[in-house]
Amino acid sequence: MSHNSFGHLFRVTTWGESHGPALGCVVDGCPPGLRFTHADIQAWMDKRKPGQSRFVTQRREDDIVKVLSGVMFDEDGETMISTGTPISMLIENTDQRSKDYGEIARRYRPGHADYTYDVKYGIRDYRGGGRSSARETAARVAAGGIARLVVPGVTVRGALVQIGKHKINRNNWDWRQVDQNPFFCPDPEMVPVWEEYLDGIRKSGSSIGAVVEVIAEGVPAGLGAPIYGKLDQDIASLLMSINAVKGVEIGEGFASAELTGEENADEMRMGNDGKPIFLSNHAGGILGGISTGEAIVARFAIKPTSSILTERQSIDADGHNVDVRTKGRHDPCVGIRAVPIGEAMVACAIADHYLRDRGQTGRLK
Amino acid sequence: MSHNSFGHLFRVTTWGESHGPALGCVVDGCPPGLRFTHADIQAWMDKRKPGQSRFVTQRREDDIVKVLSGVMFDEDGETMISTGTPISMLIENTDQRSKDYGEIARRYRPGHADYTYDVKYGIRDYRGGGRSSARETAARVAAGGIARLVVPGVTVRGALVQIGKHKINRNNWDWRQVDQNPFFCPDPEMVPVWEEYLDGIRKSGSSIGAVVEVIAEGVPAGLGAPIYGKLDQDIASLLMSINAVKGVEIGEGFASAELTGEENADEMRMGNDGKPIFLSNHAGGILGGISTGEAIVARFAIKPTSSILTERQSIDADGHNVDVRTKGRHDPCVGIRAVPIGEAMVACAIADHYLRDRGQTGRLK
Amino acid sequence: MSHNSFGHLFRVTTWGESHGPALGCVVDGCPPGLRFTHADIQAWMDKRKPGQSRFVTQRREDDIVKVLSGVMFDEDGETMISTGTPISMLIENTDQRSKDYGEIARRYRPGHADYTYDVKYGIRDYRGGGRSSARETAARVAAGGIARLVVPGVTVRGALVQIGKHKINRNNWDWRQVDQNPFFCPDPEMVPVWEEYLDGIRKSGSSIGAVVEVIAEGVPAGLGAPIYGKLDQDIASLLMSINAVKGVEIGEGFASAELTGEENADEMRMGNDGKPIFLSNHAGGILGGISTGEAIVARFAIKPTSSILTERQSIDADGHNVDVRTKGRHDPCVGIRAVPIGEAMVACAIADHYLRDRGQTGRLK
Amino acid sequence: MSHNSFGHLFRVTTWGESHGPALGCVVDGCPPGLRFTHADIQAWMDKRKPGQSRFVTQRREDDIVKVLSGVMFDEDGETMISTGTPISMLIENTDQRSKDYGEIARRYRPGHADYTYDVKYGIRDYRGGGRSSARETAARVAAGGIARLVVPGVTVRGALVQIGKHKINRNNWDWRQVDQNPFFCPDPEMVPVWEEYLDGIRKSGSSIGAVVEVIAEGVPAGLGAPIYGKLDQDIASLLMSINAVKGVEIGEGFASAELTGEENADEMRMGNDGKPIFLSNHAGGILGGISTGEAIVARFAIKPTSSILTERQSIDADGHNVDVRTKGRHDPCVGIRAVPIGEAMVACAIADHYLRDRGQTGRLK
Repeated sequence: MSHNSFGHLFRVTTWGESHGPALGCVVDGCPPGLRFTHADIQAWMDKRKPGQSRFVTQRREDDIVKVLSGVMFDEDGETMISTGTPISMLIENTDQRSKDYGEIARRYRPGHADYTYDVKYGIRDYRGGGRSSARETAARVAAGGIARLVVPGVTVRGALVQIGKHKINRNNWDWRQVDQNPFFCPDPEMVPVWEEYLDGIRKSGSSIGAVVEVIAEGVPAGLGAPIYGKLDQDIASLLMSINAVKGVEIGEGFASAELTGEENADEMRMGNDGKPIFLSNHAGGILGGISTGEAIVARFAIKPTSSILTERQSIDADGHNVDVRTKGRHDPCVGIRAVPIGEAMVACAIADHYLRDRGQTGRLK
Repeated sequence: MSHNSFGHLFRVTTWGESHGPALGCVVDGCPPGLRFTHADIQAWMDKRKPGQSRFVTQRREDDIVKVLSGVMFDEDGETMISTGTPISMLIENTDQRSKDYGEIARRYRPGHADYTYDVKYGIRDYRGGGRSSARETAARVAAGGIARLVVPGVTVRGALVQIGKHKINRNNWDWRQVDQNPFFCPDPEMVPVWEEYLDGIRKSGSSIGAVVEVIAEGVPAGLGAPIYGKLDQDIASLLMSINAVKGVEIGEGFASAELTGEENADEMRMGNDGKPIFLSNHAGGILGGISTGEAIVARFAIKPTSSILTERQSIDADGHNVDVRTKGRHDPCVGIRAVPIGEAMVACAIADHYLRDRGQTGRLK
Repeated sequence: MSHNSFGHLFRVTTWGESHGPALGCVVDGCPPGLRFTHADIQAWMDKRKPGQSRFVTQRREDDIVKVLSGVMFDEDGETMISTGTPISMLIENTDQRSKDYGEIARRYRPGHADYTYDVKYGIRDYRGGGRSSARETAARVAAGGIARLVVPGVTVRGALVQIGKHKINRNNWDWRQVDQNPFFCPDPEMVPVWEEYLDGIRKSGSSIGAVVEVIAEGVPAGLGAPIYGKLDQDIASLLMSINAVKGVEIGEGFASAELTGEENADEMRMGNDGKPIFLSNHAGGILGGISTGEAIVARFAIKPTSSILTERQSIDADGHNVDVRTKGRHDPCVGIRAVPIGEAMVACAIADHYLRDRGQTGRLK
Repeated sequence: MSHNSFGHLFRVTTWGESHGPALGCVVDGCPPGLRFTHADIQAWMDKRKPGQSRFVTQRREDDIVKVLSGVMFDEDGETMISTGTPISMLIENTDQRSKDYGEIARRYRPGHADYTYDVKYGIRDYRGGGRSSARETAARVAAGGIARLVVPGVTVRGALVQIGKHKINRNNWDWRQVDQNPFFCPDPEMVPVWEEYLDGIRKSGSSIGAVVEVIAEGVPAGLGAPIYGKLDQDIASLLMSINAVKGVEIGEGFASAELTGEENADEMRMGNDGKPIFLSNHAGGILGGISTGEAIVARFAIKPTSSILTERQSIDADGHNVDVRTKGRHDPCVGIRAVPIGEAMVACAIADHYLRDRGQTGRLK
């Protein structure tokens, strides 16, 4: 049943807490013969890494990935070649700031999983949120780095499209901008607006929600399966498994509630190259749970960080009313760092469905 | 891997197409000792049944459920008692209007799964949509009928909250209204608006999207699990697996993107009965993937039916450009009949997580 | 978790009891485009069917399989073509001899699952053994019929090699004999011995154990996977899941405990056709959990039927000492009818691993 | 699908090769609140550790287990308390003797998985057998150490009962002897016989097979489930997944083929304490796939190590005939070190079924 695993043929198990010696993942089912270096994976880790701007948590983690198994090194001593056996990756926790957890060890921070963990398990690793910490997502990103290698020709990239009420202008969308600002924002005109807005949030010790959009291009038609193995279902499941995510959309998403059948129909024509063309992509690249060959478009909403400086009413483990104020290093908008995480989840879902369709080795055929 | 199954300890496998002799499901993992009659399950089937108003498809199916296994009959000859073995349920397809499918057998209806099924499988049951038909959801509702029996004290009910641009006024929400109109609408003031609006849609042979909200009350705190066994993740996965669903929200959903941490925090206090109280429920009853004990609130968006009378551009299986116009009986707003389906999915997710926490029999303890 | 399912990509769920209206299975993950008729499946059902000689139970069941989903009919109206969606098959229970179960409803028959079912579930379908009845295996054989179609060129066939102390002489092994006698015995010289021996067992109301051997030829090299997806592991698991099976062997099995490394090594040479040849097959066609291309050889031991006419000491559900004598129609040697069941299990395991390696559709490549 | 995982609610994923930096496992689903120290786990590791007598491989590995996640430390700084999150354990590979693998990198050692890995994956980690190395079993033993803590009152212990043709005398069985000799032999009279016999095998560079018996006492009645979730099925599956295992038996095993129904029936009586008593245990503690409360008895046959000094005929990866002689450190009888591994597998199966029945936390009830 594996509460800490996802995927079927490309199967990822993550482990680790915020404040143990390390965290990591095991990627099981990776096809043999994939070639990559530590740097290939590290690039994605660095994208998610904390401490890169004033708009994200100041926790400092190098987040260096070590590949412990599942590969042989090529003669250059750097390039790894997957062997088809499980790839175990480990990331050490280096910045475990020693501090007194006495207070929150017993108090339930509103909006956090403190209360529910205690109710369920009767014990809770209160250090930095334990297993519910966003640090777990480092393991997802590492796994996503492998997933990206599985399906040739696929590009998965994400962007932040909304912070608070401030939405980007989609007409300004420019992928080249995404890495030029601390927000993964594709709309250069929105950058200064967010900058000023988030500075205000940050200084007041508050936090704000956001929306991330992930687009996968080059996905072959035919991935996915009816009825409970739908590609969009698995993408939704993985995106919803990210901490703080409260909503997921594919294609038009909730806007499709306002469309008529005529508006929503993605018409088709044969292209000049003899291949089918979709004239629009309201479906977000998936029909009946199976990829159409168009870009897969997924969006997800992230609630504001629950850790805020303002006191909130709560209770403690002994059943007393208390007021809780969460000190420490926080993300004023966790949505920012959710971009590479969302990308990783979509990449993993695609890799998994690719292998389901094609098999792990595909050598028999 | 089971593309046609969901759940872990409460595991449902559905089978069947629109136009075969029957469809059904196998519910595996149902605890022993549950007592129910055919009528108990049939009540939910009837709620989903087509042909009940002019706003849903005029296909006529009795949708009578037969329980074929997994139960013993009590002395009254009516009450069934689950034995812990798989409950197989069968629903015959009775209204398989004979018609000439020649045209759509080769043509891809825009917005339907025709093209993707053909790309993936190279063969497609074109009769009534085959496996991608909404008839499959009858099996879900039957399974949901069993799921509702698993966790004592839980009530799962849904309502339609939006058709096209017309959203209900939440201040008017009255559960008693939901069964008093053909829309499962909780806002009596919205009923005439929808009636008029949908009549227009229907008469023009068009269709329109909708939003459904499902609320589960009485769910004990502690159901769900980090990190990939989150209750909201599984609810999102199951709701997204319903035909035509393009978006899923838990609690505040996408609105949480616009909230600050202060606004979003569900504060707590000890109640007079010595039990914790949440002062709000932005979280929709789930924190860190685990139920809080508050009402679980889920919403999902359904795109407009792709079957419309207006011609749309498409291609056929031979790679020719064609224009497709979908004749036959259709739902002008499939969102209406999605209400009991959404309820069933949420009920199944809750039952599954209850058993994961508590075990299938729980007799050992 | 699915206690009533097996396989991953070729996934079978069975349901049904001895005395309900029907039993059946859902085969999920069957590749599209397989062609077969009801007669193709029925042939295997008939091989397992009760009442075919005096050496098996006299219960009369036609065991007619009906395919309810997952196929389209070819123009001949007989040939079915799989569509890639779940194949549901149903077998009615026709010979449910009405009788008074009052006695065994409360008494635990020694060697049967009566006591353990009651301990676990607190309720037990005592009619004919309920879910623990060998009738469940009819569903396995139906699924096996589909499985045999999945991997081209594979032949799976079984034989009875031991009844009580009477073992066949392997030098006499002649596959053509297997269908010429009521025992699936490949050694014509052993047939009269077993005949006389079993007549004695039968007349005394006793029963006796047996050993079945299943051989799969034509299995391509490369099926299976380390470490917990081993082909032999899955074969062992499925054979052990058959009622009354108490031991499983692959290749030399327990005899390998007495071999030296030199004796056991299956040496290799390049064949004249440029393909590798194994000079022996102690491994039974599997090394490191992966098929070698040699014949896969599996054996399993079946305990004697627990239903015997001699009184045995037991207890009842109320905790009283009782003596139990099992009347009714029984198999003096259930091992006989286990032959087609064992074949079905091996065929399913091979089909599943073939798809894991090659994918469900394999069309993408 | 997870080829490198087993179990459902107590789910173990192992990773690592013989010659990478480390190997390990992730134990997912462990209930919260279990208390243990590193020493508790290490004790089982030490039992499996190589280099402890002249009868096992002289490879020297400390096999020190490090727990990386899933626990909090009690105030003593030594006792760990499980939190319900995944327990990741890591074992470094310390004795990776540098040597020239050039020869076996291309040659297929008969009886090893070299050929099948190459056929399947097209790439093979030839260093020490890579993933197919018995070193992987260290991770199983670590997981077994956790499993032993899950079900209170259960004792799982194993013994070697046969080496080559030399079987123990069961009348001499004395558990206290098992740790007093290098063979885990329960029959003191057999020790000198095996000693002399194995010295001969070892000096000649040969190897020999063996049989291990594992007995689990104190297992509550009611664990397991029909039909494909049988406890014996899962035990068989896990034992068969151990390298070199070719046969598995439960209770009488293959001997049951020679028993009559009268002989095989485990009669029952009510005990003086008002609890049911089985008067014999031919069933090996499992009926209908569910535990009876009697001792669970499992046996498995291990083939002789394929690494032998005598040259054997084989082929290489280029399709040439070659002769292979496996130099290096080997176990003359791998069966010896299989004893703690078999114990671990049985302990894991029991833990898993205990949680399936009772749930992961069981706190809800």
